[in-house]
Amino acid sequence: MTSTTCEVGCETSLSTGPLGADEAVRLAAMFKAVADPARLRLLSIIAAQEEACVCDLTGPVDLAQPTVSHHLKVLVDAGLVTRDKRGKWAYYAVVPGALDALGAALRTR
Amino acid sequence: MTSTTCEVGCETSLSTGPLGADEAVRLAAMFKAVADPARLRLLSIIAAQEEACVCDLTGPVDLAQPTVSHHLKVLVDAGLVTRDKRGKWAYYAVVPGALDALGAALRTR
Repeated sequence: MTSTTCEVGCETSLSTGPLGADEAVRLAAMFKAVADPARLRLLSIIAAQEEACVCDLTGPVDLAQPTVSHHLKVLVDAGLVTRDKRGKWAYYAVVPGALDALGAALRTR
Repeated sequence: MTSTTCEVGCETSLSTGPLGADEAVRLAAMFKAVADPARLRLLSIIAAQEEACVCDLTGPVDLAQPTVSHHLKVLVDAGLVTRDKRGKWAYYAVVPGALDALGAALRTR
C-alpha cells in the first residue's frame, strides 16, 4: 500500500487507501446517477449556467419532457442537482462542489 | 454559458460546455463500470499497489473468486484496469491516468 497525502478539499479518494463498505455504497449510488449519457449531457448543460429551466433542457438532448424530468429527478435524488419550482417551470442547478467531490473520489494520486 | 478554461491534462469535462452525444456515451459506460460498491473497493485496493494478485483481492471484499473475477473483467473491459496472467494467478493494475481522467470529467470549474 502506498501512503498518499490527501490534499485540502479532498474527501474520500482511491488514493487514500481501501474504501470502506459504507463509503463504497454511497459513492456507487452517486456514480450510478451519472452513468447515463442523457444525464451526463443534462449535467453539462446545467453546470454551464447559474441555473437551467427544464423548458430549455429538452431541446439539446432531444428527449421528451417526461423523460428529461425523470433523469433530472435521479440527479436531484443523488444530491447532485437542486430543483426550484417557480411559477410554471422548474429550475435546476448543480449542488456546489458535489460533482467535483465525486470526481475527486477517483483520484489515484 | 460560462467560459471556463480547461487546465493542462484535462480532457473532456463538464466545465468545458455541453457534452456531445458520443462523448456522453463513452463516459457513461466508464462511470457504469465504477458504479458498483464491490468494484470501487477493488479499485481502491488495486490503486494502492503497483499491481494486485486476484488471490489477494477476494479476502478484503469478502466475495467468492468468480464474483471478484467478474467485477475485474468489467473494469478491464472499461479500460480502467489491466490484467496480466502469470503462472497460476492473474495480476491487475490500474491503467495510468484512466481513473484520474474519468474523475476529471466531472469537474465543473
